[in-house]
Amino acid sequence: MAKSLDHLKELLGVVSDLGSAAAVLGWDQQTYMPPGGAGSRAMQLATLSRLAHTKFVSKELGEALELAKAEAEGMDPESDEFCLVRKTDRDYQKEVKVPSEWVGEFSRVTALAHQDWEKARAESNFSLFEPRLEKIVSLRREYASFFAPYDHVYDPLLDDFEPGMKAADVKSVFDTLRPRLIALVQAIAERGKPIDDAPLHQSFDEKKQWDFGVEVAKAIGYDFNRGRQDKAAHPFTTGFGTGDIRITTRFDPEFLNTALFGTMHEAGHAMYEQGVDPKLDRTPLATGTSLGMHESQSRMWENLVGRSKEFWSATFPRLQEFFPDQLGETDLGDFYRMINKVERSLIRVEADEATYDLHIMLRFELEISLMDGSLAVKDLPHAWNKKSEEFLGITPPDDADGVLQDIHWSGGMIGYFPTYSLGNLIAAQLWNKINDDIPELEKKIAKAEFGDLLAWLQKNIHRHGAKYEPLDLLKRATGQSLDAEPYLQYLERKFGEIYEL
Amino acid sequence: MAKSLDHLKELLGVVSDLGSAAAVLGWDQQTYMPPGGAGSRAMQLATLSRLAHTKFVSKELGEALELAKAEAEGMDPESDEFCLVRKTDRDYQKEVKVPSEWVGEFSRVTALAHQDWEKARAESNFSLFEPRLEKIVSLRREYASFFAPYDHVYDPLLDDFEPGMKAADVKSVFDTLRPRLIALVQAIAERGKPIDDAPLHQSFDEKKQWDFGVEVAKAIGYDFNRGRQDKAAHPFTTGFGTGDIRITTRFDPEFLNTALFGTMHEAGHAMYEQGVDPKLDRTPLATGTSLGMHESQSRMWENLVGRSKEFWSATFPRLQEFFPDQLGETDLGDFYRMINKVERSLIRVEADEATYDLHIMLRFELEISLMDGSLAVKDLPHAWNKKSEEFLGITPPDDADGVLQDIHWSGGMIGYFPTYSLGNLIAAQLWNKINDDIPELEKKIAKAEFGDLLAWLQKNIHRHGAKYEPLDLLKRATGQSLDAEPYLQYLERKFGEIYEL
Repeated sequence: MAKSLDHLKELLGVVSDLGSAAAVLGWDQQTYMPPGGAGSRAMQLATLSRLAHTKFVSKELGEALELAKAEAEGMDPESDEFCLVRKTDRDYQKEVKVPSEWVGEFSRVTALAHQDWEKARAESNFSLFEPRLEKIVSLRREYASFFAPYDHVYDPLLDDFEPGMKAADVKSVFDTLRPRLIALVQAIAERGKPIDDAPLHQSFDEKKQWDFGVEVAKAIGYDFNRGRQDKAAHPFTTGFGTGDIRITTRFDPEFLNTALFGTMHEAGHAMYEQGVDPKLDRTPLATGTSLGMHESQSRMWENLVGRSKEFWSATFPRLQEFFPDQLGETDLGDFYRMINKVERSLIRVEADEATYDLHIMLRFELEISLMDGSLAVKDLPHAWNKKSEEFLGITPPDDADGVLQDIHWSGGMIGYFPTYSLGNLIAAQLWNKINDDIPELEKKIAKAEFGDLLAWLQKNIHRHGAKYEPLDLLKRATGQSLDAEPYLQYLERKFGEIYEL
Repeated sequence: MAKSLDHLKELLGVVSDLGSAAAVLGWDQQTYMPPGGAGSRAMQLATLSRLAHTKFVSKELGEALELAKAEAEGMDPESDEFCLVRKTDRDYQKEVKVPSEWVGEFSRVTALAHQDWEKARAESNFSLFEPRLEKIVSLRREYASFFAPYDHVYDPLLDDFEPGMKAADVKSVFDTLRPRLIALVQAIAERGKPIDDAPLHQSFDEKKQWDFGVEVAKAIGYDFNRGRQDKAAHPFTTGFGTGDIRITTRFDPEFLNTALFGTMHEAGHAMYEQGVDPKLDRTPLATGTSLGMHESQSRMWENLVGRSKEFWSATFPRLQEFFPDQLGETDLGDFYRMINKVERSLIRVEADEATYDLHIMLRFELEISLMDGSLAVKDLPHAWNKKSEEFLGITPPDDADGVLQDIHWSGGMIGYFPTYSLGNLIAAQLWNKINDDIPELEKKIAKAEFGDLLAWLQKNIHRHGAKYEPLDLLKRATGQSLDAEPYLQYLERKFGEIYEL
């Protein structure tokens, strides 16, 4: 390889190592760290992220990047090298635009905001959080201004999570999605055949839940030689190189779904990272290309596979062996309906497939209004409750279960929520293409054969890492632009059948 | 605090954070990391240690240090600030003397040496390791030359592990120790009343071993809110700030001693680190002052407490509750004799109290001869076997159980071994002073009351961290210089009684 590129890769390798080290410390913090370690850990993480940032925006790296850009001209635009230079340049040009004073102030404010949000949620009192959120919105507007001109003030924020995507792209698909989802959920509530999911709410031994989850994760293709599972209060997937991608899961001793679908969800994320070409290790390309694309993988395994009839026709007998007392007498068809029960509920993270995106669209619309100034922070709880009634048909009884339920805004993450729904849309688009390419996919899943599916994902999505932006990768994989139709059709067909609409 | 000192502490804090991050990665590597993570982990650790080194020997830190030295003049020499500047200056002057080319070559050679040592040990063939050890000895001589003039070529090596101590200090105490230990072990072999320790070699459920070990560790004062225990193939203690000091233990399902005394040993190390004044966190003072002083703490809890009659008079009934089938019928006095059984054995890490230091002195003498050139590497196996016969009365049947048994030399660690014995000596010296200061200590231990003992150690040893060099700290705590007599008297009295000599 050319010399300047080598030098650039060396410098990026150091940044990557620092990021991986921080990720190990973060993993430990959420799994095994004793309480006494919290203070020092915060210092260690701050030092690592500051060093990684300093090294990334350093003059040395900037110069190496310029030389590498010259060298990359005329290279195959699909080559690792060309994509590396393009992606690095993109990240670099963004990161150097943000003054370090802003970074310092933002991290100071979000640290305080996190504390105040916790207190506000505990007391269900939005006003305790309001001044901080005011400041965060104002800092986020300032952040957007570093990237002016833009089409919409929301664009630079969204771009951090979904490179290349604009607020208008999201609005367009959400405008298709919203009315039909509202109609679907309403139809289920009014005319759907009721589902009793009591069997899922019994006592399930944690050790057995763990063992069954591991068996499922292995079966669908999560490689435990290059990963592991641990317990965490808020499940996540993390990695430190393609050879070490870890998942975490939480267990509810009285409800089967939490760990079961949580494990499949995280395994979906992890298989994406495990599938990245190891040649990309220690570069900015060695990760999923966006949060939305990532969510497409986790939701595909959790829902399109994990909540399908075919999956359980193969797997339910095994689940019954694990829990004969609880599920020995349960009918497979009934079980399938139970795990797909639709409810108008308050909490996003507990929402079913049919209502989930309504929670997301509610947040997206509020974020847009906050950012463009048409909604004041002080009016946010009222706006939240109004939209909740409009989208979900319910009004939260208090702020804790309403506007204060999510951690994201307290951490300054505005522009993150839509990626959850984009993941659902993309998953459905990929799913159609996969079923074209693998004609007998449903039959294979019904025999617990997941190899072809995973191989397709590895070939068309995973191995590319962050070489292509998400909409580009979607087009390469499916030939399509972002489109809500496949997802809507999937939901309407599935729940129409389940609820006999 | 003064301004230059503040700046110095800020820079040292970054170095400390990088070191702590590397320690977390090291802990993970030996406890939970999946096999696939090995390659990336090596890169991450190399990056962290290189950055920590670069930042420590940086011009900026050097200048801050000079200013801080000027500021520290006239300060109370027992103040944290004065000690910090002194210790930093000492470490800095050492580290800047070592050329980075040497560091690179040393890490290259030891990486290869480790591989060859593993192969050599597996095949029990020293000649496979010989060329690497030649190179290591030569690199270590070169290392010593950076610190010329010295009294003995071994001094600069020893100083890395035992600051301020010289080969002559060690020789002097070992010359007292060696003949009397040889005589003691010989007397036991020839005239001692035999001990049957078969009850220790039974099947012991690992979970129960774990629970009992945790109970003991808690009882003696290891704080699980600021630490935790995990399993590791080669047990160690590590820490990432005084609020997070972790131990690891291994379990032999067929032998009680391995985990039991291993846990007490590591808890001893960990309590030292947990006892360091938190004000010293993120500085070079926030750790034990030397390996020898550290070993004095681990061996004290493992042996002076853990293998004492008093400890088991309080604790044996509880152990019997854990293992009624195995130990329900065993007599307390017999149990005490079993856990103190003396055997002329080949392997250092399995050696009892009476023979342990003979293993160490053998290695120390060979290291001295290798370094001063009076012994060639090719003649090492022969010299090892000869000394083994001379010190322990046995000759290893092969290299694997002889000269190749320890990992240390393959990692370039020459000068490390004596610290194990120094720890035993120091422990006995401290023990005498502690018994003067706490007259009823034995009675307290017999009631499982360890609070006064730990408080004494915290006050006189732990809280000081690395403020004082080990011999200085020993003098402050006991009024004495390093002395083999207390340890010898302890061993002769204890084993004279057990073996009815």
